Amino acid sequence: MADHPITPRATDYAQWYQDVIAQGELAEAAEVVKGCMVVRPHGWAIWEKMQADLDRRFKETGHQNAAFPLLIPQSFIAKEAQHVEGFAPELAVVTHAGGKQLEEPYVIRPTSETIIGHFFAKWIQSHRDLPLLINQWVNVMRWELRTRLFLRTGEFWWQEGHTAHATHSEAREEVARMLDVYRDFARDVMAMPVVRGIKTANERFAGALETRTIEALMQDGKALQSGTSHDLGQNFGRAFDVMFQNTDGVREYVWQTSWGASTRLVGALIMTHSDDEGLVLPPRLAPIHVAIVPIYKSDDERVAVLECAAKVAAELRSDGLSVKLDDRDGIKPGAKYYEWERKGVPLRLEIGPRDVAAGTVMAKRRVARIDERGKAVKEPLKLDGIGLAVGQILDDFQAMLLERAQDRLAKSILEVDTWDEFSAAFAGNESRFVLAHWDGTTATELAIKEATRATIRCLPYEGDIPGKGSLVGAGQCIKTGAPSPQRVLFAKNY
Amino acid sequence: MADHPITPRATDYAQWYQDVIAQGELAEAAEVVKGCMVVRPHGWAIWEKMQADLDRRFKETGHQNAAFPLLIPQSFIAKEAQHVEGFAPELAVVTHAGGKQLEEPYVIRPTSETIIGHFFAKWIQSHRDLPLLINQWVNVMRWELRTRLFLRTGEFWWQEGHTAHATHSEAREEVARMLDVYRDFARDVMAMPVVRGIKTANERFAGALETRTIEALMQDGKALQSGTSHDLGQNFGRAFDVMFQNTDGVREYVWQTSWGASTRLVGALIMTHSDDEGLVLPPRLAPIHVAIVPIYKSDDERVAVLECAAKVAAELRSDGLSVKLDDRDGIKPGAKYYEWERKGVPLRLEIGPRDVAAGTVMAKRRVARIDERGKAVKEPLKLDGIGLAVGQILDDFQAMLLERAQDRLAKSILEVDTWDEFSAAFAGNESRFVLAHWDGTTATELAIKEATRATIRCLPYEGDIPGKGSLVGAGQCIKTGAPSPQRVLFAKNY
Repeated sequence: MADHPITPRATDYAQWYQDVIAQGELAEAAEVVKGCMVVRPHGWAIWEKMQADLDRRFKETGHQNAAFPLLIPQSFIAKEAQHVEGFAPELAVVTHAGGKQLEEPYVIRPTSETIIGHFFAKWIQSHRDLPLLINQWVNVMRWELRTRLFLRTGEFWWQEGHTAHATHSEAREEVARMLDVYRDFARDVMAMPVVRGIKTANERFAGALETRTIEALMQDGKALQSGTSHDLGQNFGRAFDVMFQNTDGVREYVWQTSWGASTRLVGALIMTHSDDEGLVLPPRLAPIHVAIVPIYKSDDERVAVLECAAKVAAELRSDGLSVKLDDRDGIKPGAKYYEWERKGVPLRLEIGPRDVAAGTVMAKRRVARIDERGKAVKEPLKLDGIGLAVGQILDDFQAMLLERAQDRLAKSILEVDTWDEFSAAFAGNESRFVLAHWDGTTATELAIKEATRATIRCLPYEGDIPGKGSLVGAGQCIKTGAPSPQRVLFAKNY
Repeated sequence: MADHPITPRATDYAQWYQDVIAQGELAEAAEVVKGCMVVRPHGWAIWEKMQADLDRRFKETGHQNAAFPLLIPQSFIAKEAQHVEGFAPELAVVTHAGGKQLEEPYVIRPTSETIIGHFFAKWIQSHRDLPLLINQWVNVMRWELRTRLFLRTGEFWWQEGHTAHATHSEAREEVARMLDVYRDFARDVMAMPVVRGIKTANERFAGALETRTIEALMQDGKALQSGTSHDLGQNFGRAFDVMFQNTDGVREYVWQTSWGASTRLVGALIMTHSDDEGLVLPPRLAPIHVAIVPIYKSDDERVAVLECAAKVAAELRSDGLSVKLDDRDGIKPGAKYYEWERKGVPLRLEIGPRDVAAGTVMAKRRVARIDERGKAVKEPLKLDGIGLAVGQILDDFQAMLLERAQDRLAKSILEVDTWDEFSAAFAGNESRFVLAHWDGTTATELAIKEATRATIRCLPYEGDIPGKGSLVGAGQCIKTGAPSPQRVLFAKNY
C-alpha cells in the first residue's frame, strides 16, 4: 500500500475519501454482493467505540435493547401508506426458503417501524405499559444503485430506537431528547459540530409527522445527515392497532417515535477530520490511542529500547489507553510512522537509544503544529510522569479537532439574499452552508435543487448557527420572492 | 402474567421451558415471521452480557471483529461440495431487489465460510499476512420447520470466528484453543459444566475435517451442544483459492478454522439453572443483581424505608452491581417478589420499618436453603458493610449454581455395556449422559438413533468426565458387538 500515496483532497476529493478508507484498512466494496460492503477490523473497531458510547447514552435515558426479526412480511410495509411509497423501491425480497416458494414473500428490513408496531400492539394494553422505550442494534438493507462506502450502501449497520407514549407531547419530548443525544455524541465524542433542525415535508421520513436531524459540514462544504429522530404521531399506531387504555379507561392509539444513527457516522468522521496523509481519529474513538515505535541499530540498543518501550506501554495501558508497541523486525521506523498515520492513531511515541539515556521519548501528534521552518513539531516528553503528559496531549488533541471543525463550520456559513449570490455559492462542485429564505413549498425546494443541486438540510434550531443571531424574521424567498418567515439551511449533501 | 403459574418441570418439561421464557419476558415466537423469534429486553440483556464476556476472551486471544455481508451469492454455497449438501435445504433466498429480479439470487447467510473465504483470498498473499484471526457478531438464518425459542429458530444471533493459518498444526491449535475458551466461559460465567469432545463424521460441520464441541447436560437429561470449533483443513482454501506464499516462496492453500456460539446459550442457561418458580440466573450474567423491595404501610414509614433503600442501592451500585429499587406504588411486596423471582434476579433485599430501626435488611437468595420447617431461609444483613456481604453472597450463589450443575452431571453419567441397559437409559422420554462402546460406523450410529433417539454427542476429551477414569480401552459396540477402541458419549439432544 505504501507505494500508492493518498490522492490530495484538492486534486480529487472523492478519490481522496476512497484512498483514506483503503489505506486505513477501514472497509471495502463487497463487489460480489451488489452495493454492499465489508467493514474491516480497523473500521469495525471505530464503529464498536461509537456503539459503546451511544448505547450508554441510550440506557441512561431509560431505553432497553431488544432484537426483532430481520424479515418482515411484505404486506406489513404496505400498511402505512407513506411508508410503502418511500421504501418499496429499495426492498430486497425473499421469495423462497427451505427449498420452497413462500406463500407470502418477506422483505429484508429497510427499517423496523412496521414489525415493531406489530409487537408493540401485543405488549401494550394499559397506560401502565407506557412509555415503552426500545432500541435495537442491527443490519438493515436498502437496495441502492449509487453507493459509496459507509455513506450509502445496500446493507448498513445502525441502531433504531422505537418508543411508544401516552401523549403526543411526551413523544415530542422524546424526539427532541434523542436528537440532543446525537448532537452531544457528535460534538463530545466525534469532535464534530452539528446543526440541529427540522426537515421539510419533502425530506421527512416516510410515515412521520416530523423529522428532526443533525447535519454536519464535511470538508468539501457538503452536508452529511448524521442522525434523525422522527415524530411518527399515531400513523403506525393506527396501521398496527397499537392501543392503550388511558387513565380514564378509554382506548387510544399510542404516540410513537423512532430515531436512528448508522455506520455512515464513520464516513462523517473521516470527512470531518482526515487529511492528505490519511485518517485522523479523535482519541475518544481511536481503537489505538498511542503507537510506540522503537528505534535502534545494534542488538544492545534493541534490548534497551524495547525494555523502555515496554515500560511506557505498560504505564499507558494502566491508565486505560490502548497502546500498540510496534516491535516488528525488518520494517523501518519511517514505514511504521507512515502506517500508523494512515490508520489515524492520535499520538506516536518514538524511543531511541538517546531517549533511553536521557529519560525521554519523542511525541508526535497525528496533526502536529508546523514550525517556522515548515516542519511538524515533535515534543520531548519525560519518562517520569509520561502517563499524565500523554493523557493531557490526547485531551488537547480531542479539543483541537473540535475547535478546528467548529471554525470550519463558522467560516462556511453564509447568509444570502439574492439568487445570484445563492447560485454562486453552489457553482460547479462548490458547496457550503447557506442560510436563505424559502417560500415553504416543495415545488420551490425541488426547483432550487434542480438548478443548483443544493437541498434544504433543515429549518435550523435557533442558536445552532455559530455567530448568527435569530434566523426567524420575515424575508423573501431566494427563488420566487414569495414571503418567508425564517431562513433555512441549504447545502449540497451526501 | 401472575395468574398463569409456571408448569412444574415434572408435569411437562417442554411447557415449563416455554413458561419460564414467557414469564421471564425473555423472548417470544415472532409468528408472523415463520420460525423466527423476538428477543425481548430481559433476554437480550442476558445475551449482551454473554457477548461482552466472550468478546473480551476473543480479543485476548488475538482476534479482531469485522462485518461481512448478510447476503451471499447462491453460487458461493455450492463451491464446497459438503457445505452445499449440508446447508442447501435450509436457505432463505433473495430473488428480487430494487423492484427487479436479480440475475443471480443471493442467500441469507446460514454461516459465512464461503463469503469470508472470498475476502480472505483478497487479503492474504504472504505468510506475513498469517495468521488472520477474525470474528463477527451477526444474525444468521437457517430455515427450520421445528423451532423452539433460543434453541432452534429460523433467525438466530451468534458469533462466528474465522481464521487462516500457514500450517495445519497451527490451525488445529486454534481449534482446540477456542473450544477451551467456550468451555471456560460456560464453566466460569454460565456456571455450566460441559464435556469437550470430537464429533463423529455424521455430526460434523458441513465442510470440516473435524468438529469439536462442548456438550452440556440439561435438567431433563438431554444434551445441548453449546459451542463448536471446526478444523476446515484446506477445503475452503481450495474452494475460494485462498493461497499464500510460504517462507520458501512456494504458494500454498491456507489452513482454516471456524468456531461459533449462539443465542442458544440462553436456552442452555435456562435449562441448566431454572426451577419451578422460573428463571434462575448466575450473577455473572444477571442484568439485575439485586432487587430491593421496600415494605411500608404509613407515609412516615414509606419515607424512612425508601430513604434507607436508596442508600443501600447507592452503595451496591458503587460496587459495580446492577440494582433495581422497586419503589412502585400500588403493587404489594409479594407481587414484587414474584416478579423478580421469575426474572431470575439472584438476590432480593427486603427493607421494612423494623429493619430500618435495627440497621438491617433481610436478604433472600433466588435459590435459598430450605430450613427444617420447609421454609426458604432469609438472611439478616447489617446495613453497615452491606456491600461486602452482598458481594460475598453473590459469589457464593455463582459457586453454588456451578456445584449443583456439576453434581447433576456427575450423577447423570452412566457407563453401560449391554444393549438392554442402554435402551433402558433412553426409554420413553428418559435421557442421561451414557458412555458406551461404538463400532465407529455411521450405519451403527444411525441405527442406535433410530432405536433410541440417542445420538453420539462426542468422543469426549480424557478427563472431562467427572469421576471416571480413562475412556480409552478396547470394548465391544453396544449395538453390533464389533470391536471399539474407546467409549463415546450418548444422549438425546436439543
